[in-house]
Amino acid sequence: MSALKPTAVSALAKHLGATVEGDAKVIVTGAAPLETATASDLTFLGNPRYSAQLAATRAGAVIVDAKAKRPASGSVLLRAAKPYLAFAKALQFMLKPAQHSPGVQAGAHVDAAAKVSPTATVMAGAYVGPQAQIGPRTVIFPNASVLAGARIGEDCLIYPGTVVREDCVLGARVILHNNVSIGADGYGFAQDGALHVKIPQTGNVMIGDDVEIGANSCVDRAAMGSTRIGRGTKIVNLVQIGHGCQLGEDVLIVAQSGLAGSAVLEDRVIIGARGGVLGHLRIGAGTMVMSLALVTKSLPAGIVVSGNPARPHREQLRREALLKRIEKKGGKDD
Amino acid sequence: MSALKPTAVSALAKHLGATVEGDAKVIVTGAAPLETATASDLTFLGNPRYSAQLAATRAGAVIVDAKAKRPASGSVLLRAAKPYLAFAKALQFMLKPAQHSPGVQAGAHVDAAAKVSPTATVMAGAYVGPQAQIGPRTVIFPNASVLAGARIGEDCLIYPGTVVREDCVLGARVILHNNVSIGADGYGFAQDGALHVKIPQTGNVMIGDDVEIGANSCVDRAAMGSTRIGRGTKIVNLVQIGHGCQLGEDVLIVAQSGLAGSAVLEDRVIIGARGGVLGHLRIGAGTMVMSLALVTKSLPAGIVVSGNPARPHREQLRREALLKRIEKKGGKDD
Amino acid sequence: MSALKPTAVSALAKHLGATVEGDAKVIVTGAAPLETATASDLTFLGNPRYSAQLAATRAGAVIVDAKAKRPASGSVLLRAAKPYLAFAKALQFMLKPAQHSPGVQAGAHVDAAAKVSPTATVMAGAYVGPQAQIGPRTVIFPNASVLAGARIGEDCLIYPGTVVREDCVLGARVILHNNVSIGADGYGFAQDGALHVKIPQTGNVMIGDDVEIGANSCVDRAAMGSTRIGRGTKIVNLVQIGHGCQLGEDVLIVAQSGLAGSAVLEDRVIIGARGGVLGHLRIGAGTMVMSLALVTKSLPAGIVVSGNPARPHREQLRREALLKRIEKKGGKDD
Repeated sequence: MSALKPTAVSALAKHLGATVEGDAKVIVTGAAPLETATASDLTFLGNPRYSAQLAATRAGAVIVDAKAKRPASGSVLLRAAKPYLAFAKALQFMLKPAQHSPGVQAGAHVDAAAKVSPTATVMAGAYVGPQAQIGPRTVIFPNASVLAGARIGEDCLIYPGTVVREDCVLGARVILHNNVSIGADGYGFAQDGALHVKIPQTGNVMIGDDVEIGANSCVDRAAMGSTRIGRGTKIVNLVQIGHGCQLGEDVLIVAQSGLAGSAVLEDRVIIGARGGVLGHLRIGAGTMVMSLALVTKSLPAGIVVSGNPARPHREQLRREALLKRIEKKGGKDD
Repeated sequence: MSALKPTAVSALAKHLGATVEGDAKVIVTGAAPLETATASDLTFLGNPRYSAQLAATRAGAVIVDAKAKRPASGSVLLRAAKPYLAFAKALQFMLKPAQHSPGVQAGAHVDAAAKVSPTATVMAGAYVGPQAQIGPRTVIFPNASVLAGARIGEDCLIYPGTVVREDCVLGARVILHNNVSIGADGYGFAQDGALHVKIPQTGNVMIGDDVEIGANSCVDRAAMGSTRIGRGTKIVNLVQIGHGCQLGEDVLIVAQSGLAGSAVLEDRVIIGARGGVLGHLRIGAGTMVMSLALVTKSLPAGIVVSGNPARPHREQLRREALLKRIEKKGGKDD
Repeated sequence: MSALKPTAVSALAKHLGATVEGDAKVIVTGAAPLETATASDLTFLGNPRYSAQLAATRAGAVIVDAKAKRPASGSVLLRAAKPYLAFAKALQFMLKPAQHSPGVQAGAHVDAAAKVSPTATVMAGAYVGPQAQIGPRTVIFPNASVLAGARIGEDCLIYPGTVVREDCVLGARVILHNNVSIGADGYGFAQDGALHVKIPQTGNVMIGDDVEIGANSCVDRAAMGSTRIGRGTKIVNLVQIGHGCQLGEDVLIVAQSGLAGSAVLEDRVIIGARGGVLGHLRIGAGTMVMSLALVTKSLPAGIVVSGNPARPHREQLRREALLKRIEKKGGKDD
């Protein structure tokens, strides 16, 4: 099942600009954690905390920093400034190219008025609607749906069950995992007494280059204008991005988080798992929202917040410590 | 990409029963927020807070209440009692009718024993099973699945990736966005020592008229009888409705909320983002559950609750204020 | 619409090893709760709390324990040691076998290099990729996708919209409800300055026998090795299982919960609704995490935790009681 091609340590060292200690002719064919790696595996030490595991590893080769010591088993070492980053690049280098023959496969549904690049792949069961555009080398997997007027750039992967609704636009190298929803109507209703009257959602979604969105996540189309996801932003699974949100570049949104409509996240914001942001708020560049926090007012750049309502994480920790002291006293008094 | 047709202000005024200030012959072709609207756009002022933005807008036409002042740019004003509601109705009026030619498209999978109205559209890649029924003018989008015995009323939109399982029933004008799940088995297991023994889920889901359900949301079939969603209820994305829940009319459930099995929500209940309700509880008409609250016991009508466990929002605010005071003191003591 | 076949009480009694009080020749054709059951329905009393409802029921037959009294209506009683478990088994006994003719239906997309058992069913619109394997009597529903190299055991149900990605492996009798995602890439990025560099996810997902996964849930593939879900584990809707998680047997994960990468759950752990577990933690066998709790450090076996951060539920209740006392005092002082 290996997704990796057999690769000599010497080739990895050259690709990574790493120095080798040991036999550079060793070949690795897979990747595994330090504890379970065998003589044919590449692994890495990202954190000095795990030095004991390094000492005991039986891996064929290990990417380490300048200080790490060679394991007893004699694993070859590849020394790099940032071992985890080097490991990512090593795996990308070793990865077998996916096998997708270009063209529209039998059983795909491509509208006569769609424009599909001759180097793109549209697999059986996929749908591409009228006026939709599919860029070079992009793969539309089975049972994915690209509706009328949607435009998808080059080298994208649109996995099964994913839906790109009418007129949404994706840049290059975008990855949408399974069952992603791009461009469903946002939550827009005006009250007429008890009735919820639908506000037609006339906008779209614009996704920049190198964006990756996890399985079963949703990005709603804007009521007016565009919901925007900036270049390099990564979104994990089961995340909700409300209509009209504006996400900067290199933003990170961890699983099950949610942004209400028109939230603005500047570049490099991080939202921890199941974080939340209420509507129309702005979060400054590089600010981190910790897991389960609910942001209820706009935040400046470069801070860390937690809790509900979210506030500086230090304050939240102080409250937790204070409550523990009171509990201790309370227990004695009762 | 405009989804709207060019429309004269005079026609809008007539449709809305609004009065015009300025040139009623002005034509609008799009919609945009006050700040970004251009001379061809319609916009609105829903809240006097944004009067400064109204003053500066360059919109072609603005829907406002009786008091708002005309912008410097000379935008035409349409005066209506409820500007936001009027704006919703204006967009509905301007919306171009979607272009779905009736009939079963090539590449659709319709069972010989299904009943599809001749005015319905079943798009390529969609599936309609035996004994399933599709009502007049309803559209089944690509890669949507309507299983055996399911019945869908008139003028519904069943978007790509959405699944309506066996024997579930939808009323008229129901909108199910992408990857919605209707009628999966609920969480029903009886314990046999450590084993979880499945309780067959023999019921279905019944959805009333004018219901809209957001992308990747789930409504489970009842163990016995029906899970019911009342007329006019709106459910946003990634919401979980457990088996046997009974939702009244005009209920509102915001994104990522969850109702455990057999919860009962009376008419006009509102569940804020990521709200939760435990099983077998009843929430009285018009009660509002705020974002992230967890309802752990039944609630009367007409109240507002927050927190975990949920309690009257006023009490929750008092606790927050109290904790802040203690923190202040605590800080001094330490 | 009944999913159940008409069954004599005598046959049920024999199947369950239950004793009968009343006319064992009575035929039941459906199932309903105590309150709404009619003379043709089977029902059960699982909890003595509902004795008043038993007294008033009009059900044809009721499964009860040794102590319950016969209803006024004269319903036949089936006495069993564990009425709820007996009810589950009774419904399984009464369930009509689903009607899926074996074979690859017209409109299914099965790669020439896939291996599909002759007794399996692949419905119209489903996709089975190269080198994929489908076991005996398994049903692949419309618009489900089984990608290259994935292997699915016998007697599985893969419902519409569900995706099993490349090289993932399922055991026997696995049920995946609608729009489930198995094997999407986990959240793996290494930082290169502001850039998030993708770590290829080279592992897969291994799912044991008798696992059931609810609608729109996600199980990510491991970065290296396998994400594992043990035999008999049940996962409800909209749940996130991060890459590399290791779940034991008979684990229960309720709706909207989330496990970060490499979390380890030993046998019989229970995660309540919307519970969360941070990455690389271990939860001991049989421990229960209550609804909305966030587990931030590893937990021993056999305890009950709640809150954020999660701690023993008793402590959490004590804090809540303490805060209420302080509020009372606080209110007087102000």
